Amino acid sequence: MLRQIQNDLVVRTEGRGLYPVTDPVQAMVGRSGLAQGLAVLHLQHTSASLLIQENADPDVRSDLDRFFERLVPDGDSLFMHTAEGDDDMPAHVRTALTAVNLSLPFSRGTLALGTWQGIYLWEHRKIPHRRRIMIHLVGE
Amino acid sequence: MLRQIQNDLVVRTEGRGLYPVTDPVQAMVGRSGLAQGLAVLHLQHTSASLLIQENADPDVRSDLDRFFERLVPDGDSLFMHTAEGDDDMPAHVRTALTAVNLSLPFSRGTLALGTWQGIYLWEHRKIPHRRRIMIHLVGE
Amino acid sequence: MLRQIQNDLVVRTEGRGLYPVTDPVQAMVGRSGLAQGLAVLHLQHTSASLLIQENADPDVRSDLDRFFERLVPDGDSLFMHTAEGDDDMPAHVRTALTAVNLSLPFSRGTLALGTWQGIYLWEHRKIPHRRRIMIHLVGE
Repeated sequence: MLRQIQNDLVVRTEGRGLYPVTDPVQAMVGRSGLAQGLAVLHLQHTSASLLIQENADPDVRSDLDRFFERLVPDGDSLFMHTAEGDDDMPAHVRTALTAVNLSLPFSRGTLALGTWQGIYLWEHRKIPHRRRIMIHLVGE
Repeated sequence: MLRQIQNDLVVRTEGRGLYPVTDPVQAMVGRSGLAQGLAVLHLQHTSASLLIQENADPDVRSDLDRFFERLVPDGDSLFMHTAEGDDDMPAHVRTALTAVNLSLPFSRGTLALGTWQGIYLWEHRKIPHRRRIMIHLVGE
Repeated sequence: MLRQIQNDLVVRTEGRGLYPVTDPVQAMVGRSGLAQGLAVLHLQHTSASLLIQENADPDVRSDLDRFFERLVPDGDSLFMHTAEGDDDMPAHVRTALTAVNLSLPFSRGTLALGTWQGIYLWEHRKIPHRRRIMIHLVGE
């Protein structure tokens, strides 16, 4: 019979960039005792994202971040919302261009990620933050 | 035992911009009688998006819309698909750059949104539209 | 009582562009015998996307691809990760700007797509690839 479990995952960030979270998410699936099901991740913030990306070459993550810094420049005079600094509104735009929730099937207790896929929290702010991901598992 | 419920939410838009839908979605969760579960929202259109964004300062919403107007300019000569006007193809591109579905856990009958998160329908067309969101709840 | 089913869908691509997958996904829902539920699609790659877009005018798909070719130019000197050629890192960026998973409700055995919506695998690489989508159905 299907059942469901919810857990929080807290990630401390130290400035812009991609932080790997595959291992703690996989560990939650393992501890749940569920063999097959669905893992839904929801990041409870508006200036950071959840991303599935290449997990091998660190250049991919730095290229991604540099592309977004060029696409959505800090301090752009277009922006009126600058209360928290020149990276405030760019962080909201970067979040809109990506995603804050993901849905991942799992089977035999293992997330159905491709060989080269990792799950990342993408921090868009320059100063340290404490980020919370709500993880919902449903399966059997 | 887990059970599921589906409902439509209709949103009338009056031109480009972000329309809040958190309250009607939360009300559906409340009426369902489900305490814990998953809410999946699917917008049945190709020229509007579903977005989770900052719910406090309205400047964030206007900055978002202005950034996207600059990134995907109306009337861009690159586009061949212009049947419905100069905002037709830009609306499709804006939809591709964002999302038409969202997955949100809820617990104790409340959507697991962060303090500053709201759910918005982002209308990308200039003329009024009637937009339909299919909402699927599964939980217990 | 709710139950779940998982299946793979393999799509062979022949270069950049949008490949329709609505029919095989709908066929899996039909074969499942489930009347109402949720279909989650997860693409197990980092250089292709899943997209819901306009299904009528093929110009929309070519305009989308040309917009992204301009936004994320092949061979951009910004990129350090060029191991697999000048379309390698642009494919990762295009994937980050879109999505690799989708959540779609279905009812009466039919995906809750809008009239003009189709599901596409968006190939971002120029050479042929074999792409795998994990499909998870939960419903009754």
